[in-house]
Amino acid sequence: MKFTKFLPLVALIALPSLGMAQEAAEAAEAVADTTPPMEEIGYIMTTFMFLVTGFLVMWMGAGFSMLEAGLVRQKNVTMQLTKNVALFAIAAIMYYLIGYNLMYPGDGWTIPNMLGAFSITSLEPVGLADTETDLTYASVGSDFFFQLMFCATTASIVSGTLAERIKLWPFLIFTVILTGLIYPIQASWKWGGGFLDADYGFLDFAGSTVVHSVGGWAALAGALVLGPRLGKYKDGRVNPYPGSNLALATLGTFILWLGWFGFNGGSQLYMDTAGNVADISRIMANTNTAAAGGAIAALIMTQVMYGKVDLTMVLNGALAGLVSITAEPLFPSLGAATLIGAVGGVLIVFAVPALDKMKIDDVVGAIPVHLVCGIWGTLAVTLTNPDATFFGQLMSIIIVGVFVFVVSLVIWFILKAVMGIRVPEEDEITGLDMAELGMEAYPEFAKG
Amino acid sequence: MKFTKFLPLVALIALPSLGMAQEAAEAAEAVADTTPPMEEIGYIMTTFMFLVTGFLVMWMGAGFSMLEAGLVRQKNVTMQLTKNVALFAIAAIMYYLIGYNLMYPGDGWTIPNMLGAFSITSLEPVGLADTETDLTYASVGSDFFFQLMFCATTASIVSGTLAERIKLWPFLIFTVILTGLIYPIQASWKWGGGFLDADYGFLDFAGSTVVHSVGGWAALAGALVLGPRLGKYKDGRVNPYPGSNLALATLGTFILWLGWFGFNGGSQLYMDTAGNVADISRIMANTNTAAAGGAIAALIMTQVMYGKVDLTMVLNGALAGLVSITAEPLFPSLGAATLIGAVGGVLIVFAVPALDKMKIDDVVGAIPVHLVCGIWGTLAVTLTNPDATFFGQLMSIIIVGVFVFVVSLVIWFILKAVMGIRVPEEDEITGLDMAELGMEAYPEFAKG
Amino acid sequence: MKFTKFLPLVALIALPSLGMAQEAAEAAEAVADTTPPMEEIGYIMTTFMFLVTGFLVMWMGAGFSMLEAGLVRQKNVTMQLTKNVALFAIAAIMYYLIGYNLMYPGDGWTIPNMLGAFSITSLEPVGLADTETDLTYASVGSDFFFQLMFCATTASIVSGTLAERIKLWPFLIFTVILTGLIYPIQASWKWGGGFLDADYGFLDFAGSTVVHSVGGWAALAGALVLGPRLGKYKDGRVNPYPGSNLALATLGTFILWLGWFGFNGGSQLYMDTAGNVADISRIMANTNTAAAGGAIAALIMTQVMYGKVDLTMVLNGALAGLVSITAEPLFPSLGAATLIGAVGGVLIVFAVPALDKMKIDDVVGAIPVHLVCGIWGTLAVTLTNPDATFFGQLMSIIIVGVFVFVVSLVIWFILKAVMGIRVPEEDEITGLDMAELGMEAYPEFAKG
Repeated sequence: MKFTKFLPLVALIALPSLGMAQEAAEAAEAVADTTPPMEEIGYIMTTFMFLVTGFLVMWMGAGFSMLEAGLVRQKNVTMQLTKNVALFAIAAIMYYLIGYNLMYPGDGWTIPNMLGAFSITSLEPVGLADTETDLTYASVGSDFFFQLMFCATTASIVSGTLAERIKLWPFLIFTVILTGLIYPIQASWKWGGGFLDADYGFLDFAGSTVVHSVGGWAALAGALVLGPRLGKYKDGRVNPYPGSNLALATLGTFILWLGWFGFNGGSQLYMDTAGNVADISRIMANTNTAAAGGAIAALIMTQVMYGKVDLTMVLNGALAGLVSITAEPLFPSLGAATLIGAVGGVLIVFAVPALDKMKIDDVVGAIPVHLVCGIWGTLAVTLTNPDATFFGQLMSIIIVGVFVFVVSLVIWFILKAVMGIRVPEEDEITGLDMAELGMEAYPEFAKG
Repeated sequence: MKFTKFLPLVALIALPSLGMAQEAAEAAEAVADTTPPMEEIGYIMTTFMFLVTGFLVMWMGAGFSMLEAGLVRQKNVTMQLTKNVALFAIAAIMYYLIGYNLMYPGDGWTIPNMLGAFSITSLEPVGLADTETDLTYASVGSDFFFQLMFCATTASIVSGTLAERIKLWPFLIFTVILTGLIYPIQASWKWGGGFLDADYGFLDFAGSTVVHSVGGWAALAGALVLGPRLGKYKDGRVNPYPGSNLALATLGTFILWLGWFGFNGGSQLYMDTAGNVADISRIMANTNTAAAGGAIAALIMTQVMYGKVDLTMVLNGALAGLVSITAEPLFPSLGAATLIGAVGGVLIVFAVPALDKMKIDDVVGAIPVHLVCGIWGTLAVTLTNPDATFFGQLMSIIIVGVFVFVVSLVIWFILKAVMGIRVPEEDEITGLDMAELGMEAYPEFAKG
Repeated sequence: MKFTKFLPLVALIALPSLGMAQEAAEAAEAVADTTPPMEEIGYIMTTFMFLVTGFLVMWMGAGFSMLEAGLVRQKNVTMQLTKNVALFAIAAIMYYLIGYNLMYPGDGWTIPNMLGAFSITSLEPVGLADTETDLTYASVGSDFFFQLMFCATTASIVSGTLAERIKLWPFLIFTVILTGLIYPIQASWKWGGGFLDADYGFLDFAGSTVVHSVGGWAALAGALVLGPRLGKYKDGRVNPYPGSNLALATLGTFILWLGWFGFNGGSQLYMDTAGNVADISRIMANTNTAAAGGAIAALIMTQVMYGKVDLTMVLNGALAGLVSITAEPLFPSLGAATLIGAVGGVLIVFAVPALDKMKIDDVVGAIPVHLVCGIWGTLAVTLTNPDATFFGQLMSIIIVGVFVFVVSLVIWFILKAVMGIRVPEEDEITGLDMAELGMEAYPEFAKG
């Protein structure tokens, strides 16, 4: 029996026929036993949305692994895979131990609006027992699950730039600090309700600045301290070191493209109303078209500039489009989103050789994609979102950038001084896989 | 009008016991603040269903990429990857610019039931503000997101058949026309409510004809104009050109298998009632078992016919099962679905050598899988769905087939005349990767 | 306060203003036409949850394929891929034909609490027509879809251990028996409500024992009957046979990690209340952190013990963490989950060489991961779930283990006697790909 159909009837004849009302009451009671109470529905939907978008963002960890494993040379593939698995695991543990409450202190700021709470994450009790749970948002577990994946993404960005020459352990130690402290602290300034959010009106929907540029700044600092790979810039020339497996790199890009639907879509944070779910679909459609715009822009640009389409540029173009739309995937129309992504695709075609000109060796192009397009995307918010100010966006980019870059630089220098961050020359020539790990990724394929 | 907002009113005037009514009103008010209004719930669930199934179908783009990259020879892998990324991006933009409204014109047909509306897609405003949104279906954004992925799938099919010899740009231009015009126009005939739907009672649940055979016809036209690869049919023999990476091809098949749950499941179009969600689960279970039936059929057939199991046939068998069930994944029992899929698996074991006999060179077996099994699946609807007529199904297959095949043939001929569609002989021998793109997919692996 | 409980009260006192009530009645009627009836909402959400988590678990089939294809030698890759696709298809069909009702007999036990029902699975009718559907759980289709994927997982475990030397067809025949009989029968003892559930208070949330150890026992029996690969244990030394593609193995691990969110999360079985969805998020967060704990433990252990990080151990460490948390992913805190996973990671670092010492040749380390950690995880339930008893857990492990191991052993011996299970020596040296299938996975890469 359908309860809702019963209601009007109940009302219509309600009194003096008390008996029927009694019956209706019993029907309602029976329904209540097997259906979610009305006020839990929004909570259930938003929570489930976080779990689905969260697993999509987790999947981006695989995407970065494949992209980077495909873009390094064969002799460094095992190392790159090891770093990517390890950094994801480290992020998971550090974000639990310290990051989450540092980023979302609620009322528990250590320094108001600047430095969050230092405490271990704890979830709601099993079955929400014994709590007066706030049902207006989502479960802590789902929010933690979702936000953790963003923290891991930041670390993934760094590993690509520094590939093929950094030692394993210094990289992992940096990852501990990045995911436990650097990322959560600056993220609290915006997403935890800190001073960038409160005082600068900073808008960064899913993290062009808060996630992507942060990874980019940390990577840039590392690249400067670490120096370029042997032979990369020799006799005034830039020697290309082609990626060893473009099928993997393409797979990684598709994975990232897919995962980004979760990254941006889940950042709507609510799926409890028609308006919110419609917004999530706007975001996913815009995210997709921005990636397409970036890919097509890079396709055309490389054809025009070099006379040949460059697949790695097309892949990075798609990623550039994705980073560019991340700060504001909701407000643009599909057309605007395509253009914002396309500008990202154009930017990386120029940024990649520009970095090489500065002899900053970024193995996978992570700085152009995540830092340059992260900045572009953050500024582009002002084009479509009337609440954004150019000043607020720019200041936030600068503040986050200075903080992350300087702190990262200091840590890289300390690591260099204390334990060394670069493998010995002969190990770099041999390849990190055999020299550091004693294990090749493709041991049976003859070298060409 | 929002039901929950009405309740307080009812309560308010519910005299004479004002006290209790007051309390009820407050309870209702509190609930209304934090829960979705009753009439939005179906909209939220259907919209979210489209987003989830849509990202699964998007993932099929990666599946086709990996399948095709694994089945071409090593010297053409980069090109195949480039085409697959580019065609997905092109489909996204063309479907936005023209395809979506051409396919779903609503009341805005240019030629009634034949040619849809020419206009750019626009989504609902942010937050559904200022609109009298129809809450009986799903958000435009989610519907667009979902349907776009089907359009991209069609283009993916073509790239596989024509691999290893077609030039990049003519292929991309064809993709522009296929995704912007050919696919949406014929799809409007059925799914836009056009004449095949209205006059022929054509039933094609998720597109055995509308998507898969369309890709197959366009591929067949291209294969005829393009001709076979050099040396494929020589001295009366069919020379096998084994795929270069069967691990990638298997990965691609698993991706497609997974994505197909979204492809068929989402085509239920509603998830707002128990009946609809139960139907979606029927569909997913049937889709899975049809793939299994196709794979097992090909496994047994190749063992019996050749004395050896052929992995590429097993992979194509699974895909054949999936295409076969796509026209009607809802009505069959699990047993019937298994058999429908198994027939598909048997069909391709015969269709692959049959095509070779006709010297139609289909690099990945896309024509057997998508065209042959697309036709089979469309006819098989009559076996389980009492509303289907053999005449209506057959006529629709023919009408769609003639339209797509003829238009495609004309376009391929024009492209051939204007710019040439085939790479020079020496480029084909060298491989498209070095000749056209200057970039190898696996530059460090020595050639065997 | 539950709103729905209030409604009858409101109705009860809703006179004498009949007119407005009438209006309210009409509004409610209109709503009822376009929204799910209240009592269907829980059903819709739980069903959709099963579909989403089910497709994640299906995706684990791809994960096992890639993991195993990456860990075998190049000459056996095609065979390993073939086995993995085929076993998934076989599991799908056997579980439909016999497994599902054998596992969930309801009131139809053949032998009470010991042996379930022998009948083919049938789903609800289309649109739930003509049924008095029980709306308190989920659709049969979704439950079948979800549970089927667990059955397939069990078979995937076996294929890894026995790689590189077992013939295709005996393996497939064993898979038929494992997925149609062995797995469902023992699973019915717990999840079908059989004697382990009823009499031993056995707790195994998502199957550390019921799924993973079962795969492990069947694999162990096979490994003993089959013997080690040629040359693996020679002159008292253990010869390492490095995996041929660690990028694939890493991809496989990421896929499994992702799929496990569905594996454990979906095993909550309900998503109809705030408490249930909050539990699902606890489970997913715990699952993730257990994997991280296992990976980090293996990372540190291999560094400390061998002076070098071992990527394959790190990958297996993550999987070990996942298996370890599977028996109880809900009750532990994040910290406890991390530790439970970490213990799993430590265990495999010792279990892998221990197996080698016993000359049990497990190509991918499936026995350490799935059997050893399956047992550990099952016992670890007692650490966090007050309802678990050490006796009940241990007895259940033993009962399931003896049953599966003995039956498997018998079947392997029968297969050995009847048709032989091991390829000829020269085929093993040549590699199964060319010898048995005539098809190489990477035909163009020169051998190193």
